[in-house]
Amino acid sequence: MTTELILGADIGGTAVKYVVLAAEGDVVAEGEIRTDPADPVDTLRRLAAGVAAALPSGAGRLAAAGLACAGIMSEATGRLGRSPNLPGWQNRDLGTDARAVFRDQGLALANDVNAAAYGEWRRGAGRGATDLVMIALGTGVGGGVVCGGRLHLGARQAAGEIGHTVLDPEGPLCNCGNRGCLEAYAGASGIARRAALLAVTPGAASPAFRSLVAESGQRPDAAALHGLARAGDATAIELFAWAGRHLGQAVANCVNLLDPDLVIVGGGVARAGDFVLGPCRERARGLIMAQESRDVPIVPAALGPQAAALGAAELARDRRGAR
Amino acid sequence: MTTELILGADIGGTAVKYVVLAAEGDVVAEGEIRTDPADPVDTLRRLAAGVAAALPSGAGRLAAAGLACAGIMSEATGRLGRSPNLPGWQNRDLGTDARAVFRDQGLALANDVNAAAYGEWRRGAGRGATDLVMIALGTGVGGGVVCGGRLHLGARQAAGEIGHTVLDPEGPLCNCGNRGCLEAYAGASGIARRAALLAVTPGAASPAFRSLVAESGQRPDAAALHGLARAGDATAIELFAWAGRHLGQAVANCVNLLDPDLVIVGGGVARAGDFVLGPCRERARGLIMAQESRDVPIVPAALGPQAAALGAAELARDRRGAR
Repeated sequence: MTTELILGADIGGTAVKYVVLAAEGDVVAEGEIRTDPADPVDTLRRLAAGVAAALPSGAGRLAAAGLACAGIMSEATGRLGRSPNLPGWQNRDLGTDARAVFRDQGLALANDVNAAAYGEWRRGAGRGATDLVMIALGTGVGGGVVCGGRLHLGARQAAGEIGHTVLDPEGPLCNCGNRGCLEAYAGASGIARRAALLAVTPGAASPAFRSLVAESGQRPDAAALHGLARAGDATAIELFAWAGRHLGQAVANCVNLLDPDLVIVGGGVARAGDFVLGPCRERARGLIMAQESRDVPIVPAALGPQAAALGAAELARDRRGAR
Repeated sequence: MTTELILGADIGGTAVKYVVLAAEGDVVAEGEIRTDPADPVDTLRRLAAGVAAALPSGAGRLAAAGLACAGIMSEATGRLGRSPNLPGWQNRDLGTDARAVFRDQGLALANDVNAAAYGEWRRGAGRGATDLVMIALGTGVGGGVVCGGRLHLGARQAAGEIGHTVLDPEGPLCNCGNRGCLEAYAGASGIARRAALLAVTPGAASPAFRSLVAESGQRPDAAALHGLARAGDATAIELFAWAGRHLGQAVANCVNLLDPDLVIVGGGVARAGDFVLGPCRERARGLIMAQESRDVPIVPAALGPQAAALGAAELARDRRGAR
């Protein structure tokens, strides 16, 4: 009998990351192809060809594919709605495109952060949980919710938009046009904007911090700021603490509403670790109502940048009842 | 065969409201007894006796009982944790107390607002929904979540504490000690405090509004303020709009996270109807991220003050698999 393999792909604005799982869940291949920003069908064809080329001969037959995509992605209808990172793909029936390429294979479609949450739940930081909230701190901030042992998609497949929780109506302007969203505090672009502001505020930033911001053209990335914090720079440390405190308020709001087993924080900004998560935990603890829930674990994601691809594969595997 | 009846009771700080349902769900009896603030067992005994006396002879046999209780109530363990309205009952194993009284009957225990949400879902404004959020605007503000067609209790049975969503960290002081919680804006006590403040702020309130606040000893109730709003008083109208806008921010946060079929608003303050819900809908629409979800119905509760008792009965009925 041929081994059945499962593809998981994470379709981003510039690249498609993919993994191929064996039936037992081991990763048998992984790779990346370029996203064509204007042509979903060509991208998916090259994905299928790339996967076929990457598999060792005799490895098995592709039995199912999970595709994760940035934007409002309906698992139910296969339609991709608003998708700021894939403007050429949005408002399109991606399910039909995918079926044209992956003909006889079981398909699962999901939003990328929902898929990452699913991946963390199935094989990462959330294994064994019944209820969890994942928050992904990338350029933007997304989220995913597992509720009652199921990925929660919502009535219009739009659940998990935790980046646009308003934390302070007078807060900084967000990419979405509103003020004080979590994303404006804890997304990489919100942190960069705050860093640029600190750098020009007299007395607010260290010389090293000001140089870093200047060298980056006012758009320092989270990794560089993290390096500065690790080196003991007080401005960088306080910047991540500021992001973390606001994240803590959003986490507390989620915990008050859903009381999950744990909260997982992923994405590039989360690589700053306890510089963000320490102040986050402290603020959350002060704002969580039920005493029983104040020690809810707030933990870093475990799967790294492959989380969404792994989650998409797990989703395709579970949807087809392979386990 | 004797008809099987289901009791549902809503245990509040001063009174226990109860309903008795026939197997098909019709209400065959209802009533109220006094809560003994220091003696749960005596209260439950009088409840059982009151119910027996209220039932017409030959009406049937009590087969199950659902008890809803203010506070952090664990359905799983039967333990009542923190309960500001029932201080003499808190940190107590209420399941054992209840089993001592309702010996051979199936028991279900729940937090009162969770029970109200369940009632609205099963037989009120939320019939047919898969996912809903209920917000109860009483003296305090509570909530209940139905997720994936199940009442969502959370990992520590503490889900639904939506009253303590922080909407503005610099906002008014809340009963819980934090600032800017939803409860401080849209709970009856938050509204009364705001009314008292407006009444003493030069130029902020109409003469009729100032008299109402003075006559109430600085604690105007929501019903009186609603009367003033209905009479066209601009200060009272703006006060409810202020509460509604903040409620709208909390609703948007819930919709962004969970994308429910609908949001139900109940409790005494909700009787002000569109004075609260109109501004709530408008604010929520501006803050909901997914276009698909901006028209999420935000509707008043349908069951009135019996919601929690009805929901507790429905919960007991469903838990025992009678349907």
